[in-house]
Amino acid sequence: MPLLRKSLCSIILVLTLAACNSPNKSKETRDTPPNIVLIFTDDQGYGDLGSYGAAGFRTPHLDKLASQGMRFTHHYSAQPVCSASRAGLLTGCYPNRIGISGALFPHHEIGLNPDEVTLAEMLKEKGYATGIFGKWHLGHHKKFLPLQHGFDEYLGVPYSNDMWPIKLDGTKAKDGEGRGNYPHLPLVEGNETIEEIKTFAGQDKLSQLYTDRAVDFIKRNAEQPFFVYLPHTMPHVPLGVSAEFRGKSEQGLYGDVMMELDWSVGQVMETLEAEGIAENTIFIFTTDNGPWLNYGNHAGSSGGLREGKTTSWEGGQRVPMIIRWPGHTPPGTVSNKLSCNIDIFPTIAEIVGGAVPDHPIDGVSMQAVWRGDFDQTPRTELYYYFRKNHLNAVRKGKWKLVFPHKYGSYNAPPGNDGRGGRRVQTIVDSLELYNLVRDPGEAYNVIKLYPEIVTELQEVAREAREELGDLNQEIEAGKGNRPIGKL
Amino acid sequence: MPLLRKSLCSIILVLTLAACNSPNKSKETRDTPPNIVLIFTDDQGYGDLGSYGAAGFRTPHLDKLASQGMRFTHHYSAQPVCSASRAGLLTGCYPNRIGISGALFPHHEIGLNPDEVTLAEMLKEKGYATGIFGKWHLGHHKKFLPLQHGFDEYLGVPYSNDMWPIKLDGTKAKDGEGRGNYPHLPLVEGNETIEEIKTFAGQDKLSQLYTDRAVDFIKRNAEQPFFVYLPHTMPHVPLGVSAEFRGKSEQGLYGDVMMELDWSVGQVMETLEAEGIAENTIFIFTTDNGPWLNYGNHAGSSGGLREGKTTSWEGGQRVPMIIRWPGHTPPGTVSNKLSCNIDIFPTIAEIVGGAVPDHPIDGVSMQAVWRGDFDQTPRTELYYYFRKNHLNAVRKGKWKLVFPHKYGSYNAPPGNDGRGGRRVQTIVDSLELYNLVRDPGEAYNVIKLYPEIVTELQEVAREAREELGDLNQEIEAGKGNRPIGKL
Repeated sequence: MPLLRKSLCSIILVLTLAACNSPNKSKETRDTPPNIVLIFTDDQGYGDLGSYGAAGFRTPHLDKLASQGMRFTHHYSAQPVCSASRAGLLTGCYPNRIGISGALFPHHEIGLNPDEVTLAEMLKEKGYATGIFGKWHLGHHKKFLPLQHGFDEYLGVPYSNDMWPIKLDGTKAKDGEGRGNYPHLPLVEGNETIEEIKTFAGQDKLSQLYTDRAVDFIKRNAEQPFFVYLPHTMPHVPLGVSAEFRGKSEQGLYGDVMMELDWSVGQVMETLEAEGIAENTIFIFTTDNGPWLNYGNHAGSSGGLREGKTTSWEGGQRVPMIIRWPGHTPPGTVSNKLSCNIDIFPTIAEIVGGAVPDHPIDGVSMQAVWRGDFDQTPRTELYYYFRKNHLNAVRKGKWKLVFPHKYGSYNAPPGNDGRGGRRVQTIVDSLELYNLVRDPGEAYNVIKLYPEIVTELQEVAREAREELGDLNQEIEAGKGNRPIGKL
Repeated sequence: MPLLRKSLCSIILVLTLAACNSPNKSKETRDTPPNIVLIFTDDQGYGDLGSYGAAGFRTPHLDKLASQGMRFTHHYSAQPVCSASRAGLLTGCYPNRIGISGALFPHHEIGLNPDEVTLAEMLKEKGYATGIFGKWHLGHHKKFLPLQHGFDEYLGVPYSNDMWPIKLDGTKAKDGEGRGNYPHLPLVEGNETIEEIKTFAGQDKLSQLYTDRAVDFIKRNAEQPFFVYLPHTMPHVPLGVSAEFRGKSEQGLYGDVMMELDWSVGQVMETLEAEGIAENTIFIFTTDNGPWLNYGNHAGSSGGLREGKTTSWEGGQRVPMIIRWPGHTPPGTVSNKLSCNIDIFPTIAEIVGGAVPDHPIDGVSMQAVWRGDFDQTPRTELYYYFRKNHLNAVRKGKWKLVFPHKYGSYNAPPGNDGRGGRRVQTIVDSLELYNLVRDPGEAYNVIKLYPEIVTELQEVAREAREELGDLNQEIEAGKGNRPIGKL
């Protein structure tokens, strides 16, 4: 028998014996709250993981994660744009409920209201060490930064990496020219800016920097429950990648970046394993919204779904999700149940026995689904809100009803090498109905065939409008909305 | 420790000890040629497995298979229609090379030429027991039936299950009316018809019947190498399902049928495990072409790919494939390499040391990819032929060049409950270019942006036309074509 195989067998044997003969240790593990690792990428498309059909690069660490856990095929972000999506992820609310819409910019004086309860705050209350390493984007003024929202440690950029004054030729824009009035991209540690990123090369290190800090955080906190949130800046434009991965994919810079993000997942998993805590860690990977397709070869792929980021078509809002929760989530399973990033907070709260906020949230605990009890899913409906209270669509079961609205279509020549292409202002001028089971690409509007389904989905929309408003119908904020945080 | 867990631990322990301490047995296993199981479904869409995004039903056995093996996301059938696809699968040739085009009908007097070498013949030559349980569709006259093409045993229907005279109301069509001149659907054992299927209910048993016979075949041949080919009749219309699965899915009859096919996979795997031969078996699951979308709720889903069966768009020809080959294929991996069902024959031939035919074949051995050496893939190009030598498209790397041609589009109201809807004769009237990495849905024709890519792909087409002809350009059969078998 070859040596390697023999060693592997010995390891398996030891692990098996340990698992079988140490009831006390098992019990101890069962009673220790699970660590939470949440890796979140930016503007990555539904089709941009190997297990979701990526063609120009491979993602072996994420594929392995999927084979050890559960992969979701009908999972959605909270809104198809950065800040709103993150607000939903961390609060369990539709972003418009808490006043966050679209993306926050450097000139904004608003942010996530300090009265909102975040996932980090809930876990901190339960004794977790909490760290965020990456892009925050819920307000860059101190009042709104992560340390004021439940995180013990923060290193990262406070908003999107294209919100800086650097032009494609590497020079700085002048005042009044493009983003000329933006400051250089701040790298923040705690509440302080520790560096200004002024060059494209300065962004190349971000994926590794965040990863290294997350790994360090895990090592320092391995003896206690922790929550590490790793919201990568990449693959949002301008793309940056370390020398180690540059030129490594068949898909140019975008593929190289994705390979480095996959490496990041591998590094974190390796650390958990080395510390002996992988089996008591819930590992979650998902992303904020679909690809920014007008960036052409610097954008990802929707994997056959329609359109991309900032649209309420599936390519804008349906995102990959993979979870690994050993001993609880059956390995190698696939969830085709409707779920959303706003469900992650209440699911984890239920698992760790954390307190859900006093005020209403929109997410529901998907613990049953995470455990493989698919028939017990509590989520049957989804609201596709965009920006401030524009209800563009609702989904119930397999049906999606799309309401008249405007959007920027990607059906135009894309840009290249970092330059964005045009988008086409497009109008949906009457109701459209899609069967997402048969037609995930939303190619065939079947509105005339199923009047009874339209009635049923209109009722879902009526409830949404009453609770949260609908500016497409000139209905102002509904009864459930709360104010955004202001300076 | 709960009893069940204790028993499981004991089993794992015993298995681990057995695997670690029996070098002789390991060697023996290594020297025994692997069994081959090939399960093939009919008109199932790219999106119709859990791991490919199916929404209205789950496929846990196939998902588990994927987590234990390799799942392919850029894998193609040989042509997007029944007989041609099967001809390619079993001979390793583009179907037009061997004269098989479209679907064979009951009035046809042609079939797979006895001079062609099938996968079964190659394996039989190597001492394999060979059995086929399901739909043949390569000629229903005795001269062409499976026993004359390398199979020891056959039970199944000789062609598609809608090639019968039964109307939707269950009555028999009269001569001159629709399919009134078709005989009842024959169930063939060996070379003899043992039953005529005359009712819809008569089709309900087919999936279980084939499965039971495959299981029985495996049990009888567990002590020697075997090849079992299980080409299910389902989910081709008219859909049939056993009482056990009827009403079990959220997607009506189609979902029920898919759940039964998943059960079939589970039954075969269970048998392999019970016989102790699962670890020395190459288990392959794939399908013949995309979904027949005009059948509405009785059709599957292309999973966001464009169009379906009998078109050269991705929804017609890209199909799921999963392989499990323990000890060789790394578990939980995903191949995004271009591959085709015509590659299965030469891959298996190389693995078992079988003889490739003397005459030219088009498939290439993908053994390197099956082993996870993705960079070593030999396939970089694919020809999308349809019917008799119509070259509708070519793919090289991520690019697909579509040539002017006609096709029946599904962009029309679908039928329902077994009745087919209309299709729209549609013309591609000039060259179109798609980037399948960024745009797997073939939504954006980028022909004007990449003239150098067009030139490169035109060269691929020139080679195809020289070898195999192109009736879209009035080029008759090329130098490599061989004659179809005639009575």
